[in-house]
Amino acid sequence: MTTRIKCIIAYDGTHFSGYQIQPGKRTVQGEFEEVLRRMHKGTKVRVAASGRTDAGVHAYGQVIHFDTPLSLSSEQWKKALNAQLPDDIVVRFVQEADADFHARFSAKAKEYRYKVWTAAERDVFRRHYCAWHPYSLHISAMNEALGLLHGTHDFTSFCSAKTSIEDRVRTMYRAEVKADGPMLEFRFVGSGFLYNMVRIIVGTVLEIGQGKRSPADISMLLAAKDRRLAGPTAPAEGLYLWRVYYEDECLDHSLADG
Amino acid sequence: MTTRIKCIIAYDGTHFSGYQIQPGKRTVQGEFEEVLRRMHKGTKVRVAASGRTDAGVHAYGQVIHFDTPLSLSSEQWKKALNAQLPDDIVVRFVQEADADFHARFSAKAKEYRYKVWTAAERDVFRRHYCAWHPYSLHISAMNEALGLLHGTHDFTSFCSAKTSIEDRVRTMYRAEVKADGPMLEFRFVGSGFLYNMVRIIVGTVLEIGQGKRSPADISMLLAAKDRRLAGPTAPAEGLYLWRVYYEDECLDHSLADG
Repeated sequence: MTTRIKCIIAYDGTHFSGYQIQPGKRTVQGEFEEVLRRMHKGTKVRVAASGRTDAGVHAYGQVIHFDTPLSLSSEQWKKALNAQLPDDIVVRFVQEADADFHARFSAKAKEYRYKVWTAAERDVFRRHYCAWHPYSLHISAMNEALGLLHGTHDFTSFCSAKTSIEDRVRTMYRAEVKADGPMLEFRFVGSGFLYNMVRIIVGTVLEIGQGKRSPADISMLLAAKDRRLAGPTAPAEGLYLWRVYYEDECLDHSLADG
Repeated sequence: MTTRIKCIIAYDGTHFSGYQIQPGKRTVQGEFEEVLRRMHKGTKVRVAASGRTDAGVHAYGQVIHFDTPLSLSSEQWKKALNAQLPDDIVVRFVQEADADFHARFSAKAKEYRYKVWTAAERDVFRRHYCAWHPYSLHISAMNEALGLLHGTHDFTSFCSAKTSIEDRVRTMYRAEVKADGPMLEFRFVGSGFLYNMVRIIVGTVLEIGQGKRSPADISMLLAAKDRRLAGPTAPAEGLYLWRVYYEDECLDHSLADG
């Protein structure tokens, strides 16, 4: 008799070779499974996540699940996991899930955020937690560009050429940027995201903000389906997997909140 | 003919063995002097700071000075230094100083801040930039305690027993704590600070906030002049050397701003 446990976890991606387990590398999945192995007296427990994150990419609301024969309360799980996990991973929430819940396949939408520090000087305290782009940017032009991403499109131009996924059609529910002094925060909510998609969108929209491109380039890029025409891939340290949505109601509320 | 250059620098103390140069250790002074040595074609240039900071302690507004035969504008100095300094040190401001200015001996007062994260879960993105103290705290009791530190006192009870300085009388102009959600920020402005003084005050005042001690303990501790009676030394990662005051007017304005 096993129970399926769902966890919402945050991690600082700085010192991880990404989420997914790789031999000889420090990964979030590797650290998490090692703690579960200890809690299960040496038995391997496989963890499934909503998706991978790359080296240096952070998560505020990554969702994982695993099956366990142990009977602990949610509060006990949280305490036991947080007591053993390294300092750069924290379990924010634990819940017993239905047997058919799957962190990846049950996800209806995901939210990513991307932070950019635009002051002339770098911020030494946030250098691992945002990209540094010391240029003056036209926020309204950037939001005009982001608005063109709303809806259902083929995002091939905004997808790493290395990807093997054939269907690059995704739906973007929200794409916007807000400035809080010199700190910009991009927010993206979509049905799914292709490899490097947020980072390529941000790299392109920063060029639009600098006036190197016009907002209308976004429509051209969506039509062209050619990665080479889009901007550079923005660096990993600005990117956060912010939230995974499993219920339509939660997604609706989040989008309504604006 | 040399010019005295004053710089305001920030650094992330996480990966430094403190400010002061030590053989075989990575220090702020060591990194800074190495950059100056390169800029002066191998000639050593000594840097003087307002004071040391310990391993793991941060600076937002450390002040240093050095003498140089080079004639660069302030903007050129800033660019040249920032281009060569490592990612965790940044020069925020450069100014040509009078020949009798001294980063340490001209200082009239210093401001330190100390950040404490009080939520039940650690914040993985700020673990190096604040102390984590997951307890509910009585802010008003803490401010009552901090108020008793105002004025001129012998701070021996709040000074590391390792110190060799004999005169432990200092004047505290400001000592207060504010909460912004689960993040507390202590602010201290004083004529000078003894070794570990801010960290011992914070460690003691957190005990008062938890109700383990009463605010009146501060008066007892000031009178007792015994380090063993005060609370623990709060961890380094919460502490920031925030600003150094050289002009009475600046200090007055800062205190007036509240």
